[in-house]
Amino acid sequence: MSESMHTDLALEAREALLNASPGEADGILFEEERVGSFHTLVSTVRVLTPAGEQAVGKPRGTYITLENPLLRQNVLDAHEEISSLLSETLARLFPLKKKDRVLIVGLGNEDVTADALGPLCVSGLLVTRHLSGILPQELEGRLRSVCALAPGVMGQTGIETLEIIQGIQQKIRSDAIILIDALAAGNTRRINATIQLTDTGVCPGSGIGNRRQTLSPKTLGVPVAAIGIPTVVDARTIILEAVPEASRESLSAIDSLYVTPKDMDAVAKRLARILADGLNRYLHDLSSEEFRSYLY
Amino acid sequence: MSESMHTDLALEAREALLNASPGEADGILFEEERVGSFHTLVSTVRVLTPAGEQAVGKPRGTYITLENPLLRQNVLDAHEEISSLLSETLARLFPLKKKDRVLIVGLGNEDVTADALGPLCVSGLLVTRHLSGILPQELEGRLRSVCALAPGVMGQTGIETLEIIQGIQQKIRSDAIILIDALAAGNTRRINATIQLTDTGVCPGSGIGNRRQTLSPKTLGVPVAAIGIPTVVDARTIILEAVPEASRESLSAIDSLYVTPKDMDAVAKRLARILADGLNRYLHDLSSEEFRSYLY
Amino acid sequence: MSESMHTDLALEAREALLNASPGEADGILFEEERVGSFHTLVSTVRVLTPAGEQAVGKPRGTYITLENPLLRQNVLDAHEEISSLLSETLARLFPLKKKDRVLIVGLGNEDVTADALGPLCVSGLLVTRHLSGILPQELEGRLRSVCALAPGVMGQTGIETLEIIQGIQQKIRSDAIILIDALAAGNTRRINATIQLTDTGVCPGSGIGNRRQTLSPKTLGVPVAAIGIPTVVDARTIILEAVPEASRESLSAIDSLYVTPKDMDAVAKRLARILADGLNRYLHDLSSEEFRSYLY
Amino acid sequence: MSESMHTDLALEAREALLNASPGEADGILFEEERVGSFHTLVSTVRVLTPAGEQAVGKPRGTYITLENPLLRQNVLDAHEEISSLLSETLARLFPLKKKDRVLIVGLGNEDVTADALGPLCVSGLLVTRHLSGILPQELEGRLRSVCALAPGVMGQTGIETLEIIQGIQQKIRSDAIILIDALAAGNTRRINATIQLTDTGVCPGSGIGNRRQTLSPKTLGVPVAAIGIPTVVDARTIILEAVPEASRESLSAIDSLYVTPKDMDAVAKRLARILADGLNRYLHDLSSEEFRSYLY
Repeated sequence: MSESMHTDLALEAREALLNASPGEADGILFEEERVGSFHTLVSTVRVLTPAGEQAVGKPRGTYITLENPLLRQNVLDAHEEISSLLSETLARLFPLKKKDRVLIVGLGNEDVTADALGPLCVSGLLVTRHLSGILPQELEGRLRSVCALAPGVMGQTGIETLEIIQGIQQKIRSDAIILIDALAAGNTRRINATIQLTDTGVCPGSGIGNRRQTLSPKTLGVPVAAIGIPTVVDARTIILEAVPEASRESLSAIDSLYVTPKDMDAVAKRLARILADGLNRYLHDLSSEEFRSYLY
Repeated sequence: MSESMHTDLALEAREALLNASPGEADGILFEEERVGSFHTLVSTVRVLTPAGEQAVGKPRGTYITLENPLLRQNVLDAHEEISSLLSETLARLFPLKKKDRVLIVGLGNEDVTADALGPLCVSGLLVTRHLSGILPQELEGRLRSVCALAPGVMGQTGIETLEIIQGIQQKIRSDAIILIDALAAGNTRRINATIQLTDTGVCPGSGIGNRRQTLSPKTLGVPVAAIGIPTVVDARTIILEAVPEASRESLSAIDSLYVTPKDMDAVAKRLARILADGLNRYLHDLSSEEFRSYLY
Repeated sequence: MSESMHTDLALEAREALLNASPGEADGILFEEERVGSFHTLVSTVRVLTPAGEQAVGKPRGTYITLENPLLRQNVLDAHEEISSLLSETLARLFPLKKKDRVLIVGLGNEDVTADALGPLCVSGLLVTRHLSGILPQELEGRLRSVCALAPGVMGQTGIETLEIIQGIQQKIRSDAIILIDALAAGNTRRINATIQLTDTGVCPGSGIGNRRQTLSPKTLGVPVAAIGIPTVVDARTIILEAVPEASRESLSAIDSLYVTPKDMDAVAKRLARILADGLNRYLHDLSSEEFRSYLY
Repeated sequence: MSESMHTDLALEAREALLNASPGEADGILFEEERVGSFHTLVSTVRVLTPAGEQAVGKPRGTYITLENPLLRQNVLDAHEEISSLLSETLARLFPLKKKDRVLIVGLGNEDVTADALGPLCVSGLLVTRHLSGILPQELEGRLRSVCALAPGVMGQTGIETLEIIQGIQQKIRSDAIILIDALAAGNTRRINATIQLTDTGVCPGSGIGNRRQTLSPKTLGVPVAAIGIPTVVDARTIILEAVPEASRESLSAIDSLYVTPKDMDAVAKRLARILADGLNRYLHDLSSEEFRSYLY
């Protein structure tokens, strides 16, 4: 991958590889298709071998990307279709058994608009773990045991997010963990227009902060999925794309800047709701009407 | 304690006892004094025996209350004096050793104004645990290792708060835990005008929700202090105070109502800052100017 | 009306009259009916004469109240029916001509949860006045010219709300003005469960602050409707209801307290959306789907 | 001024001129000096003639810029010095008579972080117009008559901001109007590090939205000052700076993107407080302690 670009999307890391040397790299499989009446582009990057990991700079696993520029506009029908597609794609990538109990973690800092996706999404989930045994008859068997947390970032807590999740997981013994995070893209076209799903883990803060200890199946002891949407591009990245010969020095001044859309505050809330809708459908077996009356 | 009153303040539980039968109950010690230029009333209730626990309905331990109606007004000088008094009182009630590492937990739901005190306070703390080894020379030895969390309430997470704290504590092994919570008073005069400090634990949600598993030295394995401010009175409580003969039925309609001041939103932010100031001074050894430039 | 009760609802003022002396007062007409599959109680109080004004303590005009306890629960179907009913009732009470341009004013202080209904509602309106001439063909003729403002309260601006609205109205010459405000009820049962519509004006701040200059057809020069929902009961009011003999002195301590539900923060957002939905349908001629894609 | 750059700062417009052709343009005067213990750079651009207006693309008047990178860090002492400098500079640029009544308008959309500076600043002002006649003796004569408004942007209200301010001004007849707004810079180095004061007007939305009708002494009928801080750089601008030959087409994709700092949410609150502090000192004659107890 080119030095000049920082991206959390496996899709973009592969594109950069192809730009540098044509032909799919060893250990990488790729396929894409258009899906649904809003023509969402579904791309799958499979990283299969250590050589593939090395080439693409991401751990072995499957990375599915749903791309649709309508995600950043206020087009409700498209959002419903994409929520639905998200739910089906998750079910394929990260199938759950009926009795599996799931912990959802919203990563990021809710006080920073471009980093608030995880916490915002968590507040739209149908959380049920504490209702076990007290649910009405007709809901038993249709609601999965789900719990959720938005622990904040290390600058707020003083604790590595990995430690927080490991501690809680040791206590509650979920069968699977799903992480939600805001990501950084390498191309402005993908900001707020792309959902990446993966069955590997995530590095909290890799989007707009410093890298922290990885949250992964290995460090957490159970299957881990991650769902992310790029909300920013590093300002360095877009300049380096345009002028690859720009010197490191001239870029140091813009080290803490990023590129983000004018309407990010409103879009973040909508994207969080799209993710929460998709997750709720994936986790529970309720009709839209039922969801609407349990959630707002 | 009278059936009619719900209060989280040991001070009020003792007052109710005295009203019912004059003379200090067995196993209870009480003293009070006025302190400082703003005449804050400092009361101490000591619950010493099982008989005392039974009488006052609170576990054995020391309950110190700082009362000052200026707490709910915008009087900065008084607030600085009370922050200072809070810091000193904490140092007396809950002395820390120099190397003790402390976890602060802000209990409550930040999306509910009258329950947001804990989360708001946590966001004003000087958190340092993650800076160990990378602090400037002149700060080493003056900043204690502090971490902090606002996990949300069980309705948001699906997890008992006790489980969350136990899990994290097992991982990070703090030497002491301090809990911050919004409380319920039995008397409207004490709303937003009273800070209770105790070396026993706390029952999350006892203020305005349902009682949950107790967070205490026993359940958490290390010394636990709790700091709370009553922000509400149950509507039932103020009616029952006025009309002790009011029937249970006539009260069921107002079961989910509480009495709160008109300016609660603004007062909650100020109170959270007073608590955070007091805690920061108690935990760290910095001048006011230094705190101001590390926090806002 | 009894001295002991403060209410902004004509319905309750009339009830208090009836309690004091049976039989409808002179100059007052009353009727009520249950409507719809959720059995919303629609009551109409008509104040017809100066004697009626005197008796009920409200200016001449029509006061329609939609009452349904489901308003404060999260029951989406009921909310849709009530939005619809609101839209129809407004069309009957305050009919607009096709070309009428309307100014909507959200009264109250958005930083105080129980007073934020007006500003919250305004942010959910489909505002169109600035789009005149640049709308797509298919929307011309179906969207009314609507503008909206949430000017804040006098403590924030230093300006009487009446002066602000008069100044703007002189400039933009709307054909009608609709005011949205949070109200105070006399009975806890009506908190968040009642929508009052009237073709008279409103006194900003009569709910939870001090009375200000009246916003009315007379002071604003065009027809004025007002829509309000009681979000609080004065704490004095509920005590005086229970113990009419309570002394004024014993009540002075609780003068700045009010009674409000535990989940007010969440309910306020839902109620604002119900009002905004009803207003949007009343003002514009769009299908639900179209509204959904123009608003979120 | 170069086609490639969009800036709201007269200082940057002049720099661009100098880059294009050395030597001060006709009708422009410039001077700069370092001030205070934090070495704030105070630059003054005077636009004196129609030729100057044409050259610099800004209306005739004086543009004073206070530049200090410490503005975007959390350095309280520097912020106090800059607030003080702001107050003195305003007094020099826009002197008020003792009896002058002032309207402050916070422009921008408080729901968009990078555009919220005006509304945030307004909420920190000491507003007094409504207290005339009811102030304590010792404050009379030391508090100026100040009112304030944050009307929102045209997309929220449907009304041109100019119309709103003209309407209110016609009603309340202030002697002077001061506008607060978030600006766009042409250079990332100036984001959140620069305060521009001018005695001409402002074009709402020129920073991150579409240009609206100008708020100026001419359109408002009284002296008008404007205070702004650049919070963003157009993404187009930073790319065009780096690659002047970039084609218009390649830039259209990033048309609605801007560059902003990672910690914008927190910085915006601090900057708003610095502006509000400076304005309060300029408007009223109170000590710091008095301000602290009237404001928070």
